Amino acid sequence: MNNFIFENSTKVYFGKGCVKEFLAGIMDGYGKNVMLAYGGGSIKRNGVYDEITDILADRGKNVVEFSGIMSNPTYKKVMEGAALARKNNIDMMLAVGGGSVMDCCKAVSLAAAYDGDVWSDYWEKRGIIDVEPIPLGVVVTVTGTGSECNGGAVITNEEKKIKTGGDYPKCNPKFALMDPEYTFSVPKMQTASGGFDILSHIMETYFSKTDEDNISDDISEALMRSIIRNLPAALKNPQDYTARSNLMWASTMAENRIIKLGKACDFQAHQIEHQLGAYTDCNHGCGLAVIHPPYYRYIYKDGLDKFVRFAVNVWGISADGKSKEEMAAEGVQALAGFIKEIGLPTTLRELGVKDKSILPEIAESCNIAPGSYGNMTKEAILEILNESF
Amino acid sequence: MNNFIFENSTKVYFGKGCVKEFLAGIMDGYGKNVMLAYGGGSIKRNGVYDEITDILADRGKNVVEFSGIMSNPTYKKVMEGAALARKNNIDMMLAVGGGSVMDCCKAVSLAAAYDGDVWSDYWEKRGIIDVEPIPLGVVVTVTGTGSECNGGAVITNEEKKIKTGGDYPKCNPKFALMDPEYTFSVPKMQTASGGFDILSHIMETYFSKTDEDNISDDISEALMRSIIRNLPAALKNPQDYTARSNLMWASTMAENRIIKLGKACDFQAHQIEHQLGAYTDCNHGCGLAVIHPPYYRYIYKDGLDKFVRFAVNVWGISADGKSKEEMAAEGVQALAGFIKEIGLPTTLRELGVKDKSILPEIAESCNIAPGSYGNMTKEAILEILNESF
Repeated sequence: MNNFIFENSTKVYFGKGCVKEFLAGIMDGYGKNVMLAYGGGSIKRNGVYDEITDILADRGKNVVEFSGIMSNPTYKKVMEGAALARKNNIDMMLAVGGGSVMDCCKAVSLAAAYDGDVWSDYWEKRGIIDVEPIPLGVVVTVTGTGSECNGGAVITNEEKKIKTGGDYPKCNPKFALMDPEYTFSVPKMQTASGGFDILSHIMETYFSKTDEDNISDDISEALMRSIIRNLPAALKNPQDYTARSNLMWASTMAENRIIKLGKACDFQAHQIEHQLGAYTDCNHGCGLAVIHPPYYRYIYKDGLDKFVRFAVNVWGISADGKSKEEMAAEGVQALAGFIKEIGLPTTLRELGVKDKSILPEIAESCNIAPGSYGNMTKEAILEILNESF
Repeated sequence: MNNFIFENSTKVYFGKGCVKEFLAGIMDGYGKNVMLAYGGGSIKRNGVYDEITDILADRGKNVVEFSGIMSNPTYKKVMEGAALARKNNIDMMLAVGGGSVMDCCKAVSLAAAYDGDVWSDYWEKRGIIDVEPIPLGVVVTVTGTGSECNGGAVITNEEKKIKTGGDYPKCNPKFALMDPEYTFSVPKMQTASGGFDILSHIMETYFSKTDEDNISDDISEALMRSIIRNLPAALKNPQDYTARSNLMWASTMAENRIIKLGKACDFQAHQIEHQLGAYTDCNHGCGLAVIHPPYYRYIYKDGLDKFVRFAVNVWGISADGKSKEEMAAEGVQALAGFIKEIGLPTTLRELGVKDKSILPEIAESCNIAPGSYGNMTKEAILEILNESF
């Protein structure tokens, strides 16, 4: 196993009723000025907003609202939040939502505390900047990104057409409140795309070097099997608590750094999707769903044994005298079948890409993760994008 | 999934060379007076002691040694350490060893900071006492207990013939340095018993309620399969770095609270073994190896579906038209076979129990974990002990 350093400071409160049970007590540990951040307002329709604002009012907090955080949160929105936080001397931030809201708030918590050019110094150079972000707590209402237990914040710079993010341990939320019942009202398409995002995080870790016996790969297989069981169950019955709770915790486990330990984690498919997102503003999980099968068909021969293992241990495909190549291809086919089953798009056209002329520019803008299977190049990415069209 | 709260503050530095690379820098963050704690002196023979004391001297620390920590560390030894820590105004403790040394040091760190009767208030009443333990760091040299990333400290009160422990988050080590190469010189019997201790921690979690679909059970299966592969490999070649590193991390993962989330974790076999240990001072892993198969033969009918799942997913036993009972029994038999394969004892006589007359007293002294499979009673435990004789 490769050497690693691991820490994760976020305290998790998980389960039905956890906001009611714990939020008030937690808030007493922070100052008066609270920034309450959320997205498009679904939390106003499902009662979560009222539940939380009642608790904040009861604890005597001065609440400053920061709303309208979009999917693929922009650097401009981050700057808006940072200015608001500075102006109001915010003591702590409470992000209520999914990955976009959490990521935007981590970025705000950092940007508000930093005097330099935070885009350039942190996102562009992937640097660690030595500031103490504003303390952040999260209430998760959509599962998928696993942002609740790491320091990652994926932000889109619209001007530069770059969507990127790193993992800065100081940006780990101080606490995460995770009530699976809060996700009952998430629409089917968003449930599916969030679920696929989880699966993708795990696959991107699993299909990265090294390939020696590594317990992280065993754990990844366990998580993938759980998602394959529970995502269709949650789509069938959105109020299936067992399915929703397993998906919610799988989402955290995929991104709380545990399965990455000792692994290279190239996240090459994410690198491609990020640029798709930057150019088309497509849904993240949908973009990943389109990219993955053609990407894996391109690289599987370079990671043949791992793809065979994927077919057997994740999809339960039996060997029956098949060649390694046949086994590996069947595993990728099973993945493609699962994507269809959960109703996600399978072509770039479905994501709104009208013709192929934009693809070379997107391919050119993608990062190449060093050491990925298949020795990725910009030409190879263009081939994969054409294949995905 | 049941509700849970999760946090784990320990920072892990894992891999070959990690002590040389990181210890000096870490120690600069603590005060001058350091208690260096270890066991019987194996660290003096394998060079670890010199490596660490050189670093401490180089950073200008006043080192107070606390040595001779025995397996099954006693409350008396804890009190000796606490007195030493108070007398020398210890700023931080560095535990170098396996579970016994780490557990003893956690207990010392708590006892030194507490003015009341720490045995009664913490161990006996399983209370949370509101003190800030002396900061503790650990250098792991033997894998098994997984003590490096939790607040548990199992202590034996010789006078009262009670071996027990709880998990007190404030006792989590601040950091853990884990170099798998440090375990190369661990003798075969200790490697096997430590490895079985890991397996037991996972099984005790897995075979506890609830039985609904829970991602923790999937992760547990992954960890068990890894141990079943890697423990024989480490016994065959003690310098197999891949095997040693996987075992070392499996040990942590079994006890860093992750797989326990949403599970009842009755740890009934540990409850029985603890009293075996209190009465016979037997090796912990060996005691567990003797207890487990007869304990599981006693309870498996009450947790039949889980034991079938264990047979299939952990031991790869195929159904082939067998009944559930046959499948479950085959799984337990596979476990018994594995215990033999790794050379651990299978009877209480091999642990030094000379005749059965002591067994009723041991059975009577055991805790009954509420909600364990098989509705455990003291009579049932006596039956299991007789079966194990």
